[in-house]
Amino acid sequence: MSKSFTFKLNSQDGQARSGEFQTPHGLLKTPLFAPVGTQATVKGISPDQLEKIGATLVLANTYHLYLRPGSELIKEMGGLHKFMQWPHPILTDSGGFQLFSLANRRKIDQDGVNFRSHLDGSDHRFSPESAIKIQEDLGADIIMAFDECPEPYDFEYNQQALERTHAWAARCKAAQTNDAQALFGIVQGGIFDDLRAQSAEYIASLDFPGNAIGGLSVGEKKEEMHRVLDVVNAILPKDKPRYLMGVGTPEDLIEGIRRGVDIFDCVLPTRLGRNDSAFLRKGGRLNLKNKEFKAQDFAIEENCDCYTCMHFSRAYLRHLINAKEMLSATLLSIHNLRVLIRITEDSKQAIEANQFEQFAAKLLGDSTT
Amino acid sequence: MSKSFTFKLNSQDGQARSGEFQTPHGLLKTPLFAPVGTQATVKGISPDQLEKIGATLVLANTYHLYLRPGSELIKEMGGLHKFMQWPHPILTDSGGFQLFSLANRRKIDQDGVNFRSHLDGSDHRFSPESAIKIQEDLGADIIMAFDECPEPYDFEYNQQALERTHAWAARCKAAQTNDAQALFGIVQGGIFDDLRAQSAEYIASLDFPGNAIGGLSVGEKKEEMHRVLDVVNAILPKDKPRYLMGVGTPEDLIEGIRRGVDIFDCVLPTRLGRNDSAFLRKGGRLNLKNKEFKAQDFAIEENCDCYTCMHFSRAYLRHLINAKEMLSATLLSIHNLRVLIRITEDSKQAIEANQFEQFAAKLLGDSTT
Repeated sequence: MSKSFTFKLNSQDGQARSGEFQTPHGLLKTPLFAPVGTQATVKGISPDQLEKIGATLVLANTYHLYLRPGSELIKEMGGLHKFMQWPHPILTDSGGFQLFSLANRRKIDQDGVNFRSHLDGSDHRFSPESAIKIQEDLGADIIMAFDECPEPYDFEYNQQALERTHAWAARCKAAQTNDAQALFGIVQGGIFDDLRAQSAEYIASLDFPGNAIGGLSVGEKKEEMHRVLDVVNAILPKDKPRYLMGVGTPEDLIEGIRRGVDIFDCVLPTRLGRNDSAFLRKGGRLNLKNKEFKAQDFAIEENCDCYTCMHFSRAYLRHLINAKEMLSATLLSIHNLRVLIRITEDSKQAIEANQFEQFAAKLLGDSTT
Repeated sequence: MSKSFTFKLNSQDGQARSGEFQTPHGLLKTPLFAPVGTQATVKGISPDQLEKIGATLVLANTYHLYLRPGSELIKEMGGLHKFMQWPHPILTDSGGFQLFSLANRRKIDQDGVNFRSHLDGSDHRFSPESAIKIQEDLGADIIMAFDECPEPYDFEYNQQALERTHAWAARCKAAQTNDAQALFGIVQGGIFDDLRAQSAEYIASLDFPGNAIGGLSVGEKKEEMHRVLDVVNAILPKDKPRYLMGVGTPEDLIEGIRRGVDIFDCVLPTRLGRNDSAFLRKGGRLNLKNKEFKAQDFAIEENCDCYTCMHFSRAYLRHLINAKEMLSATLLSIHNLRVLIRITEDSKQAIEANQFEQFAAKLLGDSTT
C-alpha cells in the first residue's frame, strides 16, 4: 500500500534537508510546520486565513473526531477535506497519544485499548485495525500508525510498550485498504538510545512512505530530545520524510531541522495565542497582557510579515486581551503560526543555498533580530 | 461646524432613499448597515474579513473606549482608525445609551451624568462637552450628540428627558471643535408622537449634517416603531442622512428603509453569531445547535454569497458549536452581517430601479427564497 508516495530530496546541508512530498491534495515542500486542527478547525483561524499564513499541511485528531462529530458522519459529509474546507493536504494522527493521556480512563491490552470518552464517559475500543478504519473514513492524505506513547523515563515500561507499538505498526500496515493515503510508522522508545535505535530499525524495515518520531517533547530535557533525534535519524531512511510529532517552538524547529527532521506539528502556537502570548522569531515570547505594552504603537515584531504584525500595534493587542475580545486569540495565533511556518520556509531556502548553519546562528543568536 | 458634509440623494422610491454621504475616510453609500465594534473590534471579525463582508461604516462605543483602554491612549496611538486598523468610515456613539443602561450606577442632572464604571466601580462624569471631547480624541468620521434614552412608555419621564436631550444637543454642537467630524443630533421621545414630532423639529432646527433616531428597538412594539419612524421622518430634512440607532434584523431593515432610513447599526448579528444563531435573509433564524442540522451537507442559505455559506455546511457549523470552537462565532457572525449588508445593497439597487416594494415583498414574502 501507499507505494505511490515519493519523497524527493532536493538538497541537504549537514543533516538539514530540503524536499518535496507529493500527496493527493498537493505537493508538500519540506521542512514544514503543520498547524493543528484538533477538532477539524485550527482554533480561531478560518481556512482562508490559514492559507495566507502559508500553511500547507494541517493536522486533525482521530480520537477527537471519532468521538465528535463521529468519523462516519465526516465520511458521509464527503470526508475531512470537504467537511473542514481545507482543500490542501491533511494529516490525521492515530489517536494513540490522546488515549495514553487519558490515564485512568483507559486499559491497554496486546490487541488495543479500551477507553471511556472524556465527553460522556461512554465505552470505546481502539485497535490498530480500527484506528486505520477511522482514518480511512476521515480521508486524510497522511495517516499515522496506532502507537503507544509512554512516559519517557521508565525503561521497563518503554520496552514493553515498544513491543506493542511495533506489533501494532505491522498490523496497521496490513489493515490499510486505501493506497491514496500515506501511512507513516512511529518510532518510540522514550529517552533510551538502545530502544530508539531498535525502534527506528524496526519501523524502517516496514518500509512506510514516511516515518515519525513520537514520544518527544513530552517532558524530557532538550539535550535528551536532541540526542534521540541524532540516534533515530541516523537510522531512518534518507529517502522518506521524517516527522517529529508535537514540536514546537522557533528553537525546536531549528534544532529539529538541523538534525534532519522534515515535518513538525504542535498545538503551542494557537494555545499560546489563546493565552496572550506571542512567539518571537529568534526564540522566547512576549506576554501581551503585560503593562509595558500599553502604549507601544508598533508591532509584536517589526520584521514579521504576518497579518497581525503588518497591521496591529502591541497596544491594540493588549487592549483586546484586557477587553476579553476573541480577536486577540485569532491575531496572536496568526502571528505564532506564521513565525513557525516562516522559519521552515527560510530554512528551506538556507538549506538550498548551503547556508543553514549561518541562518540558524543569525536567527537564534542575534538578539536585535 | 461640519458644514462640509454633504448628503447626495441619488433617488427616492416612495419614502425609500438611495444616497451618498462623503466622509474623510471615504464615501458611504446608503442605505447601509454598520457592524458594531463596541470595544474597537467587531467581535470575532478581523478588518480584512469585515471588508470582504462589504462593511463600509463601523460603529464604536464612546463609553466603553473611554473606560478601556482610554480615549486619550487611543488619541496618543493615532486615533481609532489607526488603532483598530479600520481605514474606512467610523461612527462613535456618545455613550448616552450605555450610561442610561447603567440604572443604579448613574445619576443624572441637568448638566450631565455621574456614573460608576461597570469595570472597576470608579467614579466618572459625562457631559455634552466631555462626550464631544472624547469623540474628538477617538477621531471618528461621524460622532453623536450626548442624549438621554429613557424607557419608551413613561410619558412624563420622556418629556423631562427630552428637554435635557435637546439642551445637550445644542451644547454638543457648540462644544465641537473639529469640523472634519460630522456631528449627528438624536431625536428622542419614546413612543409618543407629539414628543417625537417636537424632538424631530427641534433637532432639525439645529442643522446637524445628519440626524439620528434613538430610543427605538428598546422594547416597544413593531407597529409603534413604524409609527414613530413615519412621524419623525416626515419632519427630518430630506437632504440629511437619517440614522436609526440599534436596529436590527432583515425585517427591521426593510421596514426602516421603506420609511426613509439611511443608516442602521445593531449588535444583533454578532451577538446571535456567538449564540449559535443565523439570520435568514427572508427573516427568521436558524439555531445551528439543533440536532436537525447534524447531517445537512449544505449551507445555511444556498443563495447567500458570504464566506461561510460559500464554504461550510450546516453540519460543520453544528459540529463547531458542539465542540465549543470559536470559529463558529466568527463564521455565523460573518453570515449574519453579510445578510444585513446585502439587504442594504440590494435595497439600494431596487430603489434606484424604482422597485423597492417589489423587492421587499419578494424578500420577506417568498418563503422559498
